Amino acid sequence: MLYLVGLGLADEKDITVKGLEIIKKAERVYLEAYTAILLVDTDALEAFYGRSVIVADREMVESSSDEILKDADKVDVAFLVVGDPFGATTHADLVIRARELSIPTRSIPNASILTAIGTTGLQLYNFGQTVSMVFFLDNWKPASFYDRIKENVSIGLHTLVLLDIKVKEQSLENMARGRKIYEPPRYMTVAQCAQQMLEIEEEVKKEGIYSRSSLGVGVARVGGEDQTIIAGTLGQLCDADLGRPLHSLVLLGKRTHDLEREFLVEFAIDKEEFNAVWKKDYETKG
Amino acid sequence: MLYLVGLGLADEKDITVKGLEIIKKAERVYLEAYTAILLVDTDALEAFYGRSVIVADREMVESSSDEILKDADKVDVAFLVVGDPFGATTHADLVIRARELSIPTRSIPNASILTAIGTTGLQLYNFGQTVSMVFFLDNWKPASFYDRIKENVSIGLHTLVLLDIKVKEQSLENMARGRKIYEPPRYMTVAQCAQQMLEIEEEVKKEGIYSRSSLGVGVARVGGEDQTIIAGTLGQLCDADLGRPLHSLVLLGKRTHDLEREFLVEFAIDKEEFNAVWKKDYETKG
Repeated sequence: MLYLVGLGLADEKDITVKGLEIIKKAERVYLEAYTAILLVDTDALEAFYGRSVIVADREMVESSSDEILKDADKVDVAFLVVGDPFGATTHADLVIRARELSIPTRSIPNASILTAIGTTGLQLYNFGQTVSMVFFLDNWKPASFYDRIKENVSIGLHTLVLLDIKVKEQSLENMARGRKIYEPPRYMTVAQCAQQMLEIEEEVKKEGIYSRSSLGVGVARVGGEDQTIIAGTLGQLCDADLGRPLHSLVLLGKRTHDLEREFLVEFAIDKEEFNAVWKKDYETKG
Repeated sequence: MLYLVGLGLADEKDITVKGLEIIKKAERVYLEAYTAILLVDTDALEAFYGRSVIVADREMVESSSDEILKDADKVDVAFLVVGDPFGATTHADLVIRARELSIPTRSIPNASILTAIGTTGLQLYNFGQTVSMVFFLDNWKPASFYDRIKENVSIGLHTLVLLDIKVKEQSLENMARGRKIYEPPRYMTVAQCAQQMLEIEEEVKKEGIYSRSSLGVGVARVGGEDQTIIAGTLGQLCDADLGRPLHSLVLLGKRTHDLEREFLVEFAIDKEEFNAVWKKDYETKG
């Protein structure tokens, strides 16, 4: 059996009791380590599980999935995914490959940022489609997120923006020379995301979908003991420092409930300004 | 401290290790038991936790929250919620009340149907806003879900429909006579939901947002060992029997990825028809 086991969001204790039992009895344990990270490192997981863990990078999962699936028709293999196994990154392709090999699969759900974002007090019913934001390069600034946000905004919905992480990246020079030397990991911050969002609106699209005075919510380390939430305008969020990764950002839609304001204002960078902007632009009338 | 602890979706072992530790040391343990249920009863939870659990019905949570919060500035109180504490039903009001009483709060996220629905192979990025479907009465058929679905459909997105549950309901007669006698619990099925959706489209709205030949996915007992997924037209789903609760339904949007089809077809009531309808109406061109 191939088990896809969600690890939740923060640390080794966010695994479910069921997931932990599966890991303890599995023949091999893989950790998908390229689309999200826990706030603890692999050593902490291994110590807690009492098992050694094989770190699976993107190349292994995408090109060598048969190695992961080897003998899984006879023995149990656990494939660990930060968050939920079918959350922000779907591992549907691995399951389809298992099917082709007649390997049964089972997934063990867990918390994902897509729902844990409810900890901000924003109602999950009011969210539209989720988008991703990648690190811009000088000559590569993909703006497809903008059109998705535009769709959500047009029907008054909040947008969760998931932020890029770069792990095990090679410099062009090292790649060209075939040197397996990797750059230090990089994690996008709420401030970088807000800046990129405004850059696309102000310098590229100019459609007025959102602006420096639109309200957003930045979160960091959701589910962790030092979980941090701040609310403010995108302009304010450009200067926000939420500390260690992982960060996410929500751009507010205008179909709101006053309970959302009441909950969020506690986290406002400037409570008075937050309430004023809310009253002016976000209060649902009627 | 008030801890809001997510229990996940299926049984007592879906709690996280962190959540279980909190329950074991809390002074009092409440279970929110009116918006969703696990597949096991409270006795099984109590046995597994080694703790007695106070079942909190809607009245207690909404009208007597101060009883739940009593002394929580000095002792730990655990408030257990099926799924994620801020998932389908938000408990923001309880947290706001705790704040007013200067009681610190912390939430322990867990799996929610809002992300676990990814187990169908449908990509969570392609979902719009979530809607709820209540049991229709002869003279009360709320159709606000229809306008939300219309918005999602207009931008090609999938819609997750959460289905009504009725627990601890009184008949009008018993209510009038003040008798605390409750009706047996009722849980909406995928078939009932599909029928109500078509009733509103065909007899009330008639806007052609979806039809008997629109594709949907029914799920039951997500995360459980007997998790069931079926895919078919709404017409087919009207006759589907997915067994025990809880059920949910997804109405497919037309912005799709072929990987979604490839994953889903395995669960089709009629594979050939599923592929034909997909090819005709759901295949993303270009």
